[in-house]
Amino acid sequence: MSTDPRPRDLVSGDVAPAAAGRRGASLEARLLGRLLSSLGDPPIEFLLGWTGERVAPRAVRPVSQVRILDRKVLFAMLRDPQVHFGDAYSAGQVQIDGDLVEFMHIVYRALARSNPDRSLTHRLARALRRPRRNTLAGSRDNIHRHYDLGNDFYAAWLGETMAYTCAYYPSAAATLEQAQTAKMDHVCRKLRIGAADSVVEAGCGWGSLALHIAGRYGARVRAFNISAEQIEFARQRARALGLQDRVEFVADDYRNISGGYDVFVSVGMLEHVGRENYPQLGRVARRSLSATGRGLVHSIGRNQPAPLHPWIERRIFPGAYAPSLGEMMQIFEPSDLSVLDVENIRLHYALTLRHWLERYEGAIERVRAMFDETFVRMWRMYLAGSIAAFETGTLQLFQVLFTTRENNAIPLTREFMYPSPPASPGA
Amino acid sequence: MSTDPRPRDLVSGDVAPAAAGRRGASLEARLLGRLLSSLGDPPIEFLLGWTGERVAPRAVRPVSQVRILDRKVLFAMLRDPQVHFGDAYSAGQVQIDGDLVEFMHIVYRALARSNPDRSLTHRLARALRRPRRNTLAGSRDNIHRHYDLGNDFYAAWLGETMAYTCAYYPSAAATLEQAQTAKMDHVCRKLRIGAADSVVEAGCGWGSLALHIAGRYGARVRAFNISAEQIEFARQRARALGLQDRVEFVADDYRNISGGYDVFVSVGMLEHVGRENYPQLGRVARRSLSATGRGLVHSIGRNQPAPLHPWIERRIFPGAYAPSLGEMMQIFEPSDLSVLDVENIRLHYALTLRHWLERYEGAIERVRAMFDETFVRMWRMYLAGSIAAFETGTLQLFQVLFTTRENNAIPLTREFMYPSPPASPGA
Repeated sequence: MSTDPRPRDLVSGDVAPAAAGRRGASLEARLLGRLLSSLGDPPIEFLLGWTGERVAPRAVRPVSQVRILDRKVLFAMLRDPQVHFGDAYSAGQVQIDGDLVEFMHIVYRALARSNPDRSLTHRLARALRRPRRNTLAGSRDNIHRHYDLGNDFYAAWLGETMAYTCAYYPSAAATLEQAQTAKMDHVCRKLRIGAADSVVEAGCGWGSLALHIAGRYGARVRAFNISAEQIEFARQRARALGLQDRVEFVADDYRNISGGYDVFVSVGMLEHVGRENYPQLGRVARRSLSATGRGLVHSIGRNQPAPLHPWIERRIFPGAYAPSLGEMMQIFEPSDLSVLDVENIRLHYALTLRHWLERYEGAIERVRAMFDETFVRMWRMYLAGSIAAFETGTLQLFQVLFTTRENNAIPLTREFMYPSPPASPGA
Repeated sequence: MSTDPRPRDLVSGDVAPAAAGRRGASLEARLLGRLLSSLGDPPIEFLLGWTGERVAPRAVRPVSQVRILDRKVLFAMLRDPQVHFGDAYSAGQVQIDGDLVEFMHIVYRALARSNPDRSLTHRLARALRRPRRNTLAGSRDNIHRHYDLGNDFYAAWLGETMAYTCAYYPSAAATLEQAQTAKMDHVCRKLRIGAADSVVEAGCGWGSLALHIAGRYGARVRAFNISAEQIEFARQRARALGLQDRVEFVADDYRNISGGYDVFVSVGMLEHVGRENYPQLGRVARRSLSATGRGLVHSIGRNQPAPLHPWIERRIFPGAYAPSLGEMMQIFEPSDLSVLDVENIRLHYALTLRHWLERYEGAIERVRAMFDETFVRMWRMYLAGSIAAFETGTLQLFQVLFTTRENNAIPLTREFMYPSPPASPGA
């Protein structure tokens, strides 16, 4: 191991296989050089803390600098970069100089070009890291691990609505609160919810949509969630708003939904359902809906079937999965439900996440006091990486509107989805 | 075989298995009674021409009467009703008293309830009737058989636009011509076509959309079609409109599309592509599109994968298939294309077909002079049955808008799809 304190400049071409014997370059510098080459020389340079070496791409000026403080960390990252990079960043063993979102953009673009998912070792590694199963008990544990981090933590950066799903920006200048409210109205308009309707919600978070439907549209709502902390919070909000007679928050699994409704809605739950349960979700929706019933499923998705990023699945969202649109059809097709409308609003999730990250950084001292520095950095990486994932098209966001096969009470055009929002009577 | 001239009234309950030994009922009457029972007693009665018997459902007043003139025809229909019913109707061996569309409605609703597709014999029959393959030569033959029936024939009932695909009705009161023009504008707005764009069209029919894009939006268009008669007709129209410099009609298969374009559009061709070729269609779209390119595929579809009605596939559309939305995703997913928007406009196809059927009946003497009575009845059954298929949700109509994964030049909302239509500068 070199102990030369002066940085020695290496470019990836210099340490690529053909020049692997170059005098003075350490093994680890040569491996990083090879990695940069294999990724098409993205504008990233590495600084190795223990040798002082600098590894940069050949033809392009770096915009991000990655400091790796420890040799062992580097080798762990080279073995399984998808999991260990995030862990090393969280632990502070890897530092990024420059904008973190921009860095993650570069990484996602490079990965999309090189498509490492196709290599055999990656497919093997992927098979060994299957998402945790979403049985009734498994779901409860998976959901507890993410959503029961503390309502105070989420309140610090989600904003007033406490909506932890993609917002809808009528214009890019909308505030987070405006965009979350616009999302709820967009969903309600698609579903044509009126005061006479009964609505069932599968996966209601902290209750913002259920309360909005009851408060602004006057419908009756039964809202299901298996996160105990969220349900308790939602019930308090219902009482504070005087909506407890119109909204029932049920601490139970969506699979136990019973009864008949005019509307079935699920915003941001599908990611936790598990592909093997999609047909069952469809059967629950089908049996819940009247002959003229409407349903909507809102979920993170992808262009092609692929597992969630393994670091996200392991550290942030245990058991989660972002389906392709084709995979989502396994909800609707076995139950003979008719898909009326699909809208992909992925760029709205990038905007939402930018607002969350900004508020998160603004609340960073409170977060640090609740958890520790590793958590602070982990959550920052998750938010920044998610922005890049939506902006590079690695992730999509689908809203799927559906109805029963026999329902002909369907407006001819979708113009009804785009009126001026109803005047607010409260909420 | 009975020769009793007086109709003997039988209800399906009387001839169901439990009462199969009923004195006086012929074998064929008992079989028809059983068929009615198995379909849940739809409001249809049968009149058997050679026995004078009448077979009616037990509990419901019939609204349609089916006269079967010949015993052999009845047994052929009982063996393979899906193919032989249409053939017998075309040949005049079966006659329907009452509204044909209403009768087809009853049939589709009964079939949806009883789901005969699940029985083993039906699955076997289905396997033996696989659609004709769409190789390059096979497609040419399949398309020739349907679209080269003569431009005069289609002109008799398609209306001025000669658009032979689902129209778009801004209101149910729109005329066929208004709705076909509105469909073209709806497609062009979704694709945000401007005068600077180059457009490639896969499967252009008689050229109406290509000419509309060039004439009203000023874009350059290359339009592909393997129907010789259609291409010749389209070229004449282009010259008559003075658009021959902006629209090139290419007598070739979509698989041979080359070059780069801003827009890829295909309206009503996918039904003839064949599922096995969906990924190839996606590759053609992908390689045709610039980084900010947009594409749209418009196709008949279904809620669930199922073969096209075998009579339609055999007599009307050789090689055709109506995919589920999940199956359609095999166009986009392998090529990493992003689906931006899906709209299901099945009720618009029912309206379109009602207009076509009305005009067809108005032109019936011209059609009879071109073909014969069997053709006249066959085409009537096809149009009436299609209305019922779209109105009962047996068939759907999907417009799928897509773009490249890396394209972030996407409007935040879909309101741009719903402006007032551009002022007409001709066309």
